[in-house]
Amino acid sequence: MSAQLQDDLNKQMAALGQRARAASQELIASTPDQRRVAIAAMAAEIRKDADAILAANAKDLAAAGDLGAAMRDRLVLDAKRIEAIAASLDEIAAMPDPLGEVMESWERPNGLTFQKVRVPLGVIGIIYESRPNVTADAGALCVKSGNAAVLRGGSESFHSSGALLAALRRGLASAGLPEDAIQSLPTTDRAAVGIMLGMVDDIDVIIPRGGKGLIARVSAESRIPVIKHLDGNCHTYVQSSADLAKARAVILNAKLRRTGVCGATESLLFDRAAVGSHALLILRDLLDAGCEVRADATLQALDTRIRPADEADWGTEYLDKIVSAKVVDGVDAAIAHVNLYGSHHTDAILTEDKAAAAAFTAKVDSAIVVVNASTQFADGGEFGFGAEIGISTGKLHARGPVGAQHLTSHKYVLTGDGTVRG
Amino acid sequence: MSAQLQDDLNKQMAALGQRARAASQELIASTPDQRRVAIAAMAAEIRKDADAILAANAKDLAAAGDLGAAMRDRLVLDAKRIEAIAASLDEIAAMPDPLGEVMESWERPNGLTFQKVRVPLGVIGIIYESRPNVTADAGALCVKSGNAAVLRGGSESFHSSGALLAALRRGLASAGLPEDAIQSLPTTDRAAVGIMLGMVDDIDVIIPRGGKGLIARVSAESRIPVIKHLDGNCHTYVQSSADLAKARAVILNAKLRRTGVCGATESLLFDRAAVGSHALLILRDLLDAGCEVRADATLQALDTRIRPADEADWGTEYLDKIVSAKVVDGVDAAIAHVNLYGSHHTDAILTEDKAAAAAFTAKVDSAIVVVNASTQFADGGEFGFGAEIGISTGKLHARGPVGAQHLTSHKYVLTGDGTVRG
Repeated sequence: MSAQLQDDLNKQMAALGQRARAASQELIASTPDQRRVAIAAMAAEIRKDADAILAANAKDLAAAGDLGAAMRDRLVLDAKRIEAIAASLDEIAAMPDPLGEVMESWERPNGLTFQKVRVPLGVIGIIYESRPNVTADAGALCVKSGNAAVLRGGSESFHSSGALLAALRRGLASAGLPEDAIQSLPTTDRAAVGIMLGMVDDIDVIIPRGGKGLIARVSAESRIPVIKHLDGNCHTYVQSSADLAKARAVILNAKLRRTGVCGATESLLFDRAAVGSHALLILRDLLDAGCEVRADATLQALDTRIRPADEADWGTEYLDKIVSAKVVDGVDAAIAHVNLYGSHHTDAILTEDKAAAAAFTAKVDSAIVVVNASTQFADGGEFGFGAEIGISTGKLHARGPVGAQHLTSHKYVLTGDGTVRG
Repeated sequence: MSAQLQDDLNKQMAALGQRARAASQELIASTPDQRRVAIAAMAAEIRKDADAILAANAKDLAAAGDLGAAMRDRLVLDAKRIEAIAASLDEIAAMPDPLGEVMESWERPNGLTFQKVRVPLGVIGIIYESRPNVTADAGALCVKSGNAAVLRGGSESFHSSGALLAALRRGLASAGLPEDAIQSLPTTDRAAVGIMLGMVDDIDVIIPRGGKGLIARVSAESRIPVIKHLDGNCHTYVQSSADLAKARAVILNAKLRRTGVCGATESLLFDRAAVGSHALLILRDLLDAGCEVRADATLQALDTRIRPADEADWGTEYLDKIVSAKVVDGVDAAIAHVNLYGSHHTDAILTEDKAAAAAFTAKVDSAIVVVNASTQFADGGEFGFGAEIGISTGKLHARGPVGAQHLTSHKYVLTGDGTVRG
């Protein structure tokens, strides 16, 4: 890029940042009704503009040329998908408003009262890949939580996202909110992302949504704090007291309900006392369902279809019909294995022993710890959070599923009566 | 630094990071009693070792040579200050334990129960200047909240901090907690700080404590999220309905109780309707108490001692017996001024009008918003948080005074009865 072009881009990005900050200040003063009406209007605008959005999508598909089937499926829109995007916005509009909630309140001996009140974060930057629906979902979740959004979608979905963005902005304007509450970068040039990741004064947090490569690149380059999702190498540990029927049903669900989601179980741990009683039937269930099992020598002896696991298997997120399996000597060994090889995402214990469950939930250092249920509950909808912008595997600010209520901060409001400090 | 020395330092720092992470895993499994006993033992070790700590401090003072009086005051220890350090640890030990608290709990229609439980953050890096007491306070607050601490104190206090650290580590060991729960960098060389700020896998958050220069340097360089305190350009706005007697008392306190603290009022705003009724007496109170007043033309006309303010004054944190003062046309103009020139730290309104107070608290985008009280309440102790590690002016993770309870994250514990996802 020439110095002149770089200079122009710097200026465009600075202006975009200032518009985002100004819009976020207006959103702080907006009412729950305005935000609800705006998001419902976005849904209406998308329905009304379906033809134009489909035409834009056709342009993207033509420009992309020969995509793989998976990539094409992520990019393509049809009437049904456009309705699903609009319906998702209707749901976000109908969710309880997260702002203004008095999270805590107390009084001090000097009569001063304290309220901790939920407020927006400010400006949220979202960097994602080719799914155009993220444009609508992410924009609406930001507005729901009173934040301005700066979006950077994949270059493949440039026209589709642009058409959706235009509908979102008309929705904002119709409710009297600033159109600049949702903006996208002026160009798909990578240089713009570089500038965006350094805008520490005008963007408060960056959320990357996509594959590991994208998340690693954004994390390495960003000067702004990042809320991100790393691996989901999830474990289910069968403690010796586990109810066999429940364990068989839960593990089939945890591994095979959907294999490509981050909450899918990737590794099974069995107490040595549960090898004959539990592991044999559970592993055969999985093998019979077409799941490859890679296990240590003890478990391999249970069925000829079981393959040997090597050290790398314990740390692998397969996202496929493959599971690793290992024998451990009791709950402390299970906890140590999970904390060493896991990714601190979601890990489960199956047990009828309260002390074992208590030890596991206390000591496993994961965002989500599950007792006697499927790891596939790792999902904002299942938590009751409504739409989610992702699942955070970090511990700062947000951990676990991130819904509108987690895209917030707080302020303290102190009320006295001429109260002075001694 | 030679390549060989750099290589050695890299290895030392990597080992330190791994020890910190391992210690933090042990702290996750520690009990409230262990943490309480450890911090009380740290206090006892400091009292027992007072002579050695004073000798180390004498070494620091001798090495420092001709310090300024302020710098020397920050560095010097005596028997009384050592007792104050130990007493502060006793207070931290006696505070309620923040961990394990069930912050929220709910049940879903499928019978799955959810608990959001408070857990430690992990490893906290603290970078500070010459006050040796920060070594003890920061180390104890981290242990209280179940976190391992990596400390980097100023080079001037190297020996004093080292002697205090040795006492802290003996306290940890006596309670059966890992000594490496509190470590300091192996050298005061700046290169070690550079490495520390890039240890994204082994340090979860960096907290700089000190002057603006230190905080700016750390923020610019860190690859790890930073919880920091920027300026405290605090306002007190006198709305036309303010009670005069209360306003006079509050403003004297807000400006002059202590002028060097971040919660001191630096700028006064008066409604146009309050110039004759309030501003005249309030500004004379301040002038009579030896405070310099820099004001706009309208207020300057009230008293010949008042000097003219220029544009730079509205954005200045004096930390001195100086205040700026300006007339505004109503609460919306006051809010706009505070959001434009303020530092989003602590801002107050004095009013008997509930609607004005509501508008100010809703729209002023500051960590702490005060009604009818002194801005000098911006302090963790005054909030009832006990000892604080600082005041955050950021919105991510922690905002306002940061006590032990804010050095935490959460995990979700899901409990079912063989529950599978549909």
